[in-house]
Amino acid sequence: MDNLKELSSVKTFGGWQKRFSHPSAVLDCDMQFSVFVPPQAEQGHPLPVLYWLSGLTCTDENFSTKAGAQRLAAELGIMLVMPDTSPRGEGVADAPDGAYDLGLGAGFYVNATQAPWQRHYQMYDYVSTELPALLNANFKLGKAAIAGHSMGGHGALILALRHPQRYTSVSAFAPIVNPMDCPWGQKALSAYLGEDRNQWQQYDACHLLASQSHFSLPMLVDQGLADNFLDTQKLSRPLQLVCQQQGIEAQFRYHQGYDHSYYFIASLIDDHLRFHAQHLSLTE
Amino acid sequence: MDNLKELSSVKTFGGWQKRFSHPSAVLDCDMQFSVFVPPQAEQGHPLPVLYWLSGLTCTDENFSTKAGAQRLAAELGIMLVMPDTSPRGEGVADAPDGAYDLGLGAGFYVNATQAPWQRHYQMYDYVSTELPALLNANFKLGKAAIAGHSMGGHGALILALRHPQRYTSVSAFAPIVNPMDCPWGQKALSAYLGEDRNQWQQYDACHLLASQSHFSLPMLVDQGLADNFLDTQKLSRPLQLVCQQQGIEAQFRYHQGYDHSYYFIASLIDDHLRFHAQHLSLTE
Repeated sequence: MDNLKELSSVKTFGGWQKRFSHPSAVLDCDMQFSVFVPPQAEQGHPLPVLYWLSGLTCTDENFSTKAGAQRLAAELGIMLVMPDTSPRGEGVADAPDGAYDLGLGAGFYVNATQAPWQRHYQMYDYVSTELPALLNANFKLGKAAIAGHSMGGHGALILALRHPQRYTSVSAFAPIVNPMDCPWGQKALSAYLGEDRNQWQQYDACHLLASQSHFSLPMLVDQGLADNFLDTQKLSRPLQLVCQQQGIEAQFRYHQGYDHSYYFIASLIDDHLRFHAQHLSLTE
Repeated sequence: MDNLKELSSVKTFGGWQKRFSHPSAVLDCDMQFSVFVPPQAEQGHPLPVLYWLSGLTCTDENFSTKAGAQRLAAELGIMLVMPDTSPRGEGVADAPDGAYDLGLGAGFYVNATQAPWQRHYQMYDYVSTELPALLNANFKLGKAAIAGHSMGGHGALILALRHPQRYTSVSAFAPIVNPMDCPWGQKALSAYLGEDRNQWQQYDACHLLASQSHFSLPMLVDQGLADNFLDTQKLSRPLQLVCQQQGIEAQFRYHQGYDHSYYFIASLIDDHLRFHAQHLSLTE
């Protein structure tokens, strides 16, 4: 496989959980990512793909080990792709105080313009362009959908809002929808992009959606009501408000008692897989 | 709750994933364990229980985060109980070289008789007696079944073989079935029990089963054929041979391509839950 080094391959649910490393030109470092290849790959048809973007502190492995998504993905024949959440490796800048919400594990899916970040922190281009090209060169892939959790929900939403033609559908668990106006987002955006808030707008789902009334990509958002970050980090609700204001149809669901953890994701991942499967096949 | 301190409680699949700590008299230290309480607990009926015993290096959390068992347990109304794999805490002996297969994380579900282990390493009594009593004092529980993986599959089998009246059924993934005759088992048994092999027999599933022809507890064993430990650590197969010799019915299944990991467990845990559910209800 071009530029891909297979690090592991483990059978699960009749398919294969695999981990690869590759040199990333965009990020100027070696990267790892995980995929689940469903059993239907053996039939030789193009596989529909769901990109999963993880949240703060995660690597490519949190979703693959904790979400339990492979069971239904194997049944539906969906390939899962799980990128890492930041550039990695020696020489890659990190938060000077080792904070969990900046630097390693906290790329925020933006293209950094500020020192010391701009050399490696180009996660927007990596996830939107370089990684899909690499995958398409190495696997026989069909249409793509995108989903994510928290910071990764933010990533999924901004990618879908800026490139609706690339995805059949978008979904998110507890997404940061208004990073311009919450502590996690402001810390990351000011570090990576500088203090000019005009530069932040291209990475703010609420801002992006407020500027378009014709956005018609199917959208599903699940939010736990026992999520400690719900109000402080501007999860889910502000985006629903913009949808209502813009007359944009989207499904927002709120769940009593559920928190921000993978136990919440695991409980509802099947709904997201079925949601995307419906649109992945309708549009093929 | 008597002697139980709730460390966390997270909603998942309509039920609750909880973690408790408690002082263990048998182990002479504080212990932690995890449970999944299914939504049916609210109805007030006694809940059938599945004890899950984990393998080397695990804590009470590996199964709860990686196996994906809560989804079907919530549907079937089964409570899951996940003990730790050894005593823990300051003053608890560990392997002098920090080896993964002796001491912390490697209690092997035996009652140690040798120094320095005998003070805390009484996992057989803890899992077979103290923990069930504690749970019955704090939850409304019905019948119990038992399952486990690798070292925990060994634990599940010896407990079921020695106390068939306590369980409706037993199942295992890649269990160590003949610890007297493999490196993991010999290392642990000689350290915890000394060099008198007569003392080892009470903890060897093959030996225990060979000495009884009337064992009739339903038994299911799943084994991956790409498991690196299959032959060297005497997994599954020697027990199947004893079953055949003794005319004991049991279901042994071998799976092409599957390894020793939680990806294997996750792929087949639903079958184990349905297997136990059938027997938990048949015998109530």
